[in-house]
Amino acid sequence: MVKAALFSHYIMRTMVKRVFFSTSATKLEGGVSMVQGASRGIGLEFVRQLLHRKETGHVVATCRDPDSATDLQKLKKDFDSRLNILPLDVTNESTIEEAATTIRDTYGYLNLLINASGILSIPNLLQPETTLSKVEKSSLLLTYEVNAIGPILVVKHMWPFLKVGGGTGTEREVAVVANLSARVGSIRDNGLGGWHSYRASKTALNQLMKTISVEFARKKDPISCILLHPGTVDTDLSKPFQRNVPPGKLFTREFSVQKLLNIIDNTKKIDNGKFFAWDSTEIPW
Amino acid sequence: MVKAALFSHYIMRTMVKRVFFSTSATKLEGGVSMVQGASRGIGLEFVRQLLHRKETGHVVATCRDPDSATDLQKLKKDFDSRLNILPLDVTNESTIEEAATTIRDTYGYLNLLINASGILSIPNLLQPETTLSKVEKSSLLLTYEVNAIGPILVVKHMWPFLKVGGGTGTEREVAVVANLSARVGSIRDNGLGGWHSYRASKTALNQLMKTISVEFARKKDPISCILLHPGTVDTDLSKPFQRNVPPGKLFTREFSVQKLLNIIDNTKKIDNGKFFAWDSTEIPW
Repeated sequence: MVKAALFSHYIMRTMVKRVFFSTSATKLEGGVSMVQGASRGIGLEFVRQLLHRKETGHVVATCRDPDSATDLQKLKKDFDSRLNILPLDVTNESTIEEAATTIRDTYGYLNLLINASGILSIPNLLQPETTLSKVEKSSLLLTYEVNAIGPILVVKHMWPFLKVGGGTGTEREVAVVANLSARVGSIRDNGLGGWHSYRASKTALNQLMKTISVEFARKKDPISCILLHPGTVDTDLSKPFQRNVPPGKLFTREFSVQKLLNIIDNTKKIDNGKFFAWDSTEIPW
Repeated sequence: MVKAALFSHYIMRTMVKRVFFSTSATKLEGGVSMVQGASRGIGLEFVRQLLHRKETGHVVATCRDPDSATDLQKLKKDFDSRLNILPLDVTNESTIEEAATTIRDTYGYLNLLINASGILSIPNLLQPETTLSKVEKSSLLLTYEVNAIGPILVVKHMWPFLKVGGGTGTEREVAVVANLSARVGSIRDNGLGGWHSYRASKTALNQLMKTISVEFARKKDPISCILLHPGTVDTDLSKPFQRNVPPGKLFTREFSVQKLLNIIDNTKKIDNGKFFAWDSTEIPW
């Protein structure tokens, strides 16, 4: 499956520019996907599967610090011409703007944007709350900034490229904005309580994405914006909380991302603004 | 309806302390209600109606700057012994803690907490967004801080006093935490888009309050936490946006608060965690 890199990054970039700017109707074979939050966990697995499952298609993988993203750098060795690693920190809007400028100059469009970054806990700094007494303003603000504000700012700056891209070069009728949400962000489904900051940030993310899906529809943009619950997946994010996961319910990253890519591949206009679990069932708000 | 003040504030406070601490079963006649965000608009009207509709019952009215809250100060002249105006800024947790200390020392309990503060727009600073292109991090953070974080921090610090339940002088089996939410915070109901920051903050408020309602139920606390949509009410908050309100759909503060107090008066254990419109119908999340 691994395709040998045919061109150096520099030559490829020059070619891409020439192809794109020679005629706006010409599109890169296999389309251009962006995975935001790609250094590890589910984001990294998205990059891996997007590169491996087809012989074509470009992937822009973003993370806070590309130099320390060793797994992405390994992939870069095998997929040099198809993988572009860019720095992007969702808490710093200027880095989003810089990534947008690079994407504009390099590809000119996107067919898929996956917002995969997210925080739940940070040792000695952020701990999911077990009771109202432990709710702290700093935790509420930090999770909101990373899990809700970050993703919408990314879509804000990538929107022009998604409009141009649509479904061209893919088998979809639309470009897709896929956001990693979580079932615990569902208010109706909230039967356990706790995790106040994380829940509220994902619920707000759902509302923000629903809000922009309405604008996409009204403006007839060829974009569907969806929310995804990946299941409980064996990643660094879930590791401190895996104790209570019933047997068979802790998914591998490979399994979860296969399921999520299946949803993304089959996303249509009418799916714009919907919230899907890994098994394609819709989750109530 | 106006009852003459019988005692100076100081004497009343001393009496109240004596009554409460002499026996924990003795409660202040008519109960104790707190209205957070009481200097104007719906919050002020809650204070007014809570004082006027019965001859008994104490009201703690909080606002950022009591000295400039002229309408509250006018009410204070008529209801000196029953109205206690305290400074509280939801963006400054220490002021919430100070108010909690005063409430503990003065009354020892609360039967009702109304979170009425909220922001939608501030001239030259905060404007509800009409498109994704206008979404700014500063607006998302500010509305979240005031509309979602503020109310949950208030409940966090008042929680110990609310565990007393409905109490003598109210006809309820439970204490009530009533939060001013908004129909635009419903994700399912979001058909118009826009107002990203405000919507997301109210949606997050809904999730935060649903989360704590689960804990109240699990711990068998005699508290029901509810969310309220007041309708579009003629206040400073809605003034810049009243143009598009259909005739007959712009409510007076008097009408809306009458309807909301009717819901609060009839709140039962099973209503814990629900989201009601002014006409008592439930709103989907």
